[in-house]
Amino acid sequence: MVRPYELILKKRTGHELTTDEIEQWIQGVTDGSFTDAQSAALLMAILFRGMSDRETAALTLAMARSGRQVDLSSLPGIKVDKHSSGGVGDKTTLVVAPLVAAAGAPVAKLSGRALGHTGGTLDKLESIPGLRVELSLSEFLDVVREVGVAVASAGVDLAPADKKLYALRDATATVDSVPLIAASIMSKKLAGGADAFVLDVKVGEGAFLTREEDALALARTCVAVAHEAGRQAVAYLTSMDQPLGVAVGNALEVREAIETLQGGGPADLRELVLVLGAEMVRLAGVEADEGKARSLLERLLDSGEAAARFQRMIAAQGGDPAVVENPDLLPRAEVRLPVEAPRAGYVQAIATRELGLASMALGAGRDRPGAPIDLAVGLEVVRKVGERVEAGEPLAWIHARSEAQAEGIRARVAAAFRLGEAPVEPPPLIRQRVASGT
Amino acid sequence: MVRPYELILKKRTGHELTTDEIEQWIQGVTDGSFTDAQSAALLMAILFRGMSDRETAALTLAMARSGRQVDLSSLPGIKVDKHSSGGVGDKTTLVVAPLVAAAGAPVAKLSGRALGHTGGTLDKLESIPGLRVELSLSEFLDVVREVGVAVASAGVDLAPADKKLYALRDATATVDSVPLIAASIMSKKLAGGADAFVLDVKVGEGAFLTREEDALALARTCVAVAHEAGRQAVAYLTSMDQPLGVAVGNALEVREAIETLQGGGPADLRELVLVLGAEMVRLAGVEADEGKARSLLERLLDSGEAAARFQRMIAAQGGDPAVVENPDLLPRAEVRLPVEAPRAGYVQAIATRELGLASMALGAGRDRPGAPIDLAVGLEVVRKVGERVEAGEPLAWIHARSEAQAEGIRARVAAAFRLGEAPVEPPPLIRQRVASGT
Repeated sequence: MVRPYELILKKRTGHELTTDEIEQWIQGVTDGSFTDAQSAALLMAILFRGMSDRETAALTLAMARSGRQVDLSSLPGIKVDKHSSGGVGDKTTLVVAPLVAAAGAPVAKLSGRALGHTGGTLDKLESIPGLRVELSLSEFLDVVREVGVAVASAGVDLAPADKKLYALRDATATVDSVPLIAASIMSKKLAGGADAFVLDVKVGEGAFLTREEDALALARTCVAVAHEAGRQAVAYLTSMDQPLGVAVGNALEVREAIETLQGGGPADLRELVLVLGAEMVRLAGVEADEGKARSLLERLLDSGEAAARFQRMIAAQGGDPAVVENPDLLPRAEVRLPVEAPRAGYVQAIATRELGLASMALGAGRDRPGAPIDLAVGLEVVRKVGERVEAGEPLAWIHARSEAQAEGIRARVAAAFRLGEAPVEPPPLIRQRVASGT
Repeated sequence: MVRPYELILKKRTGHELTTDEIEQWIQGVTDGSFTDAQSAALLMAILFRGMSDRETAALTLAMARSGRQVDLSSLPGIKVDKHSSGGVGDKTTLVVAPLVAAAGAPVAKLSGRALGHTGGTLDKLESIPGLRVELSLSEFLDVVREVGVAVASAGVDLAPADKKLYALRDATATVDSVPLIAASIMSKKLAGGADAFVLDVKVGEGAFLTREEDALALARTCVAVAHEAGRQAVAYLTSMDQPLGVAVGNALEVREAIETLQGGGPADLRELVLVLGAEMVRLAGVEADEGKARSLLERLLDSGEAAARFQRMIAAQGGDPAVVENPDLLPRAEVRLPVEAPRAGYVQAIATRELGLASMALGAGRDRPGAPIDLAVGLEVVRKVGERVEAGEPLAWIHARSEAQAEGIRARVAAAFRLGEAPVEPPPLIRQRVASGT
């Protein structure tokens, strides 16, 4: 049994910790024999000294094993999970999960809630009348078995040691360490029980990581950790230099997801869904050829089969399946107010994080865990980077509970759009693909 | 009011903290608004990023002000304090304090206790029958006023914020940072109320700092901090590559101190006393000329005046002054056993820390604060580095409570002496003098 002091000193002086030492640390975090102060000091030492992929994998596995681990072995086939590092207007899971299920790959998706400037899949789903996301594990597995797809909360907290360490990192300015972020993400993914993972690492002004090199390092580390843990993973670096799609806000995003599942929807959202979905289908062993996988998914979107699968999932989770045909059954805000372009020009850039915070300020997000949110409000971002707008044309629409509320946020939303004379190229959506060995 | 998070992040990313920010930290340590985990993370960031002299001084002053500050202004003249970073056989204070007082400079010395491989002045003094070191502040000042010198505990804990942070550092492997060590030492010194300081920074195998560059950095930082705080300080780097003098252990060291106060004693101890004492006399404004200061002190030792001053201090603190004429009144161990040289040769090196630990194992020290100690036991180190010894001659004497106890430690003490054929130079006692601006 190594003493916490020796373990901290070892990392502090630049040595690699053994797998056994990392397991003792996480055991100590769980049983209290490692104090918060000792963990905080070790986290800061890790921030300065880094961790090898082997150390990061050991930390990830130790945290994954600190609590309940979901057993998906009763479900048939290769289970592929999907994770997004979080962005503004990112409703990809709502589309890709039923789509991939329709293609024949079971999707048992455990999701999270909105926090800060980013939304959460569970909140979005709860805007569907009656739908329950708080399923017991057996209910959850029953839905996957019956429908091929379920999206729910974990029921129990996965990786409780990660939760403890995350709270410590949040209090001690040790959040932004690539190995620690990777271990936090992947510990919950591994505990979620899937065999393979498709990771959507957002990069850009509206993402947690704004620099491509940081996002790439995180993607590489997550893929390496999955590999060390004997699972498959592919990561994509995708743009969060503008919101994904048009809708930002819970019910608004569900409406847009339904449109996309029906073969419509914004081009960028459809493209991301096809790229991530094809990768999931490939990893699940349903269709090895990338081109064929993509064609299959396009067909499922355009034929309505993907939408039908979403409808079945909604019904199985207690929601009203009629929303798919009639999205007006979703909660709607009373006021819809345009944010007009103050002058003509091309959209040079969009302050994406600021739009996420504006949406949160309307009530669509939360600044602390557990705070209530308003499912109806949000934004429609109708002009994207590179698009031409004339003076007085809408850049965005605000969905609010009152004129006063909408007016109160209008200048902030307008200020998020930078207009200029010069035409600009829209930022590429897919930046890089990162697989094991790349 | 800056948030702890921002403050940690600022230091972590390599920026200097303002004096105000450092004061808020120490205030937060005291009132609990800065958690242990946050302080631990900040300490680790400081360990990696360092602190400027200005930051270190701000930390030192904030910690000094976190509790009671001793007011020595009722005593006449410039009050000079002396501090040792701790070593084996370091009984310098017992000699230099009464000596400097005899020269006309008041010495109000607050001292500490033994811990680990190093001894403590308070424990040593308590081997004098009846002597009290736990004086109230007013008793302490009365003794200084009456006799010119007192050596006692602080009565109250000085710099309680330092005590808290030290405990945290000790648990989180963040002890060995030069600015943090300097702030810890100097916060207690500043709170002790003296106008000037002579610092004895030990360097070598038996010291806390084994490398001269580290000891030099600490000495420079302590002197700079005193300067920033508007006080004077001079530091000496002195050798702890072998024990100071012959005696190691409480009553044994008091006996040796008395011999030295009477003009005898080991040459290295007398030399160190004269160097540090002359500096104290100079800082106190008693005698500006270094040569004259030294001559004055030599005269006070050789005339018995220094010993007489010690005798008066003992009496004023409730002890039996007869020990100065009759050191056999001090506690004595029943057994005195030689540790013989296994072969002839020159003493190449002495594992000084190991001798400190051997003495502690006999009972002369303590491995945790508050543990009881045996004042009678210890070692006499009768062969020093560079000295010739014949096979079977004593290298050291063990003073123990029983034959079995002495035999039990004998091999360990013998192993601390490295003998060889080649003559070697003894290590120089005084390595460097560091004053403001050097």
